Amino acid sequence: MPDYKVYYFNVKALGEPLRFLLSYGNLPFDDIRITREEWPALKPTMPMGQMPVLSVDGKKVHQSVAMSRYLAKQVGLAGADDWENLMIDTVVDTINDFRLKIAVVSYEPDDDVKEKKLVTLNSEVIPFYLEKLDDIARDNNGHMANGKLTWADMYFVAILDYLNYMTKSDLVANHPNLQRVVDNVTSIDSIKAWIDKRPQTEI
Amino acid sequence: MPDYKVYYFNVKALGEPLRFLLSYGNLPFDDIRITREEWPALKPTMPMGQMPVLSVDGKKVHQSVAMSRYLAKQVGLAGADDWENLMIDTVVDTINDFRLKIAVVSYEPDDDVKEKKLVTLNSEVIPFYLEKLDDIARDNNGHMANGKLTWADMYFVAILDYLNYMTKSDLVANHPNLQRVVDNVTSIDSIKAWIDKRPQTEI
Repeated sequence: MPDYKVYYFNVKALGEPLRFLLSYGNLPFDDIRITREEWPALKPTMPMGQMPVLSVDGKKVHQSVAMSRYLAKQVGLAGADDWENLMIDTVVDTINDFRLKIAVVSYEPDDDVKEKKLVTLNSEVIPFYLEKLDDIARDNNGHMANGKLTWADMYFVAILDYLNYMTKSDLVANHPNLQRVVDNVTSIDSIKAWIDKRPQTEI
Repeated sequence: MPDYKVYYFNVKALGEPLRFLLSYGNLPFDDIRITREEWPALKPTMPMGQMPVLSVDGKKVHQSVAMSRYLAKQVGLAGADDWENLMIDTVVDTINDFRLKIAVVSYEPDDDVKEKKLVTLNSEVIPFYLEKLDDIARDNNGHMANGKLTWADMYFVAILDYLNYMTKSDLVANHPNLQRVVDNVTSIDSIKAWIDKRPQTEI
């Protein structure tokens, strides 16, 4: 079994899909959480000066979605054929577009600009994405693709806390099909065990 | 052979990787270019109200990177194993991060804000990414991953005109290894033939 290490800050956010997937596959990993004080010295050792980073037998790779897709193949959560993988990739990239549209408002430094952007985000962007994603979850029987458990479910549920944190809301509260996706993932024994034992963090 | 249609505006940009990959594989496709006038009526028929969209035997899918990965598998430009695919996915997502960092400045509506953002983009972001990407191309013998032709090369070269348009520059001019990637792709007969016959557009 390869030696896996996850390098990230002490937050869930973009590192959590990796931790979910490794936990799902019962693949032991070092869950390395870097403090803000340690980061400047470590930054130059990371592929693009960013985290999360996954180390596989000492080889460091980056890009959270690419790493998640790789781990999904190792733990049996990829699609059964090219088309199923396309369905997974499409919804994961859509979830990521949604995340970026939220982040660009959440991290806006100018208060007046942020106020204006928040109106569009809350009245248009969030309702549009949630309705589309809820329809997808409905059509896929409580999953994000292919009517069965895949890494798209893991990805969505693992970053949901981060999306909720940025939007100061419970995004799935009024979207019963997305709530089903959450329930389907969090009721898996290995995921439940990970959630119980992971460090408690707000983000 | 499936019936392929590419729906996009009359630009290269995010649709061009699909057209490159289909051309590379000698897969016939309808290159459907929607005018700004036609778009409002068509928009609701597209999966997320966005283009590019690929239609495969009438099934419409979206997300340019996901569609490119799917087509790459059909034309033999994916990696040979999970690790090679991870290397491809990582660099493609990095190219896309680079694109987004350029786009957020290029499409900034406020002139004063844009002016300020342009300074950071030109003095820090662009040099950082170009140096990293050129190192990757050097280490991979004129390719973006795995030391051989993959869809990462196609993706980079196909969207390069768009990146150059947004930055009003020739990004590979002083990066000989990235120039080699361009040369390696554009010297392929099927790609050369596509570039010769495609509609001439600025973007």
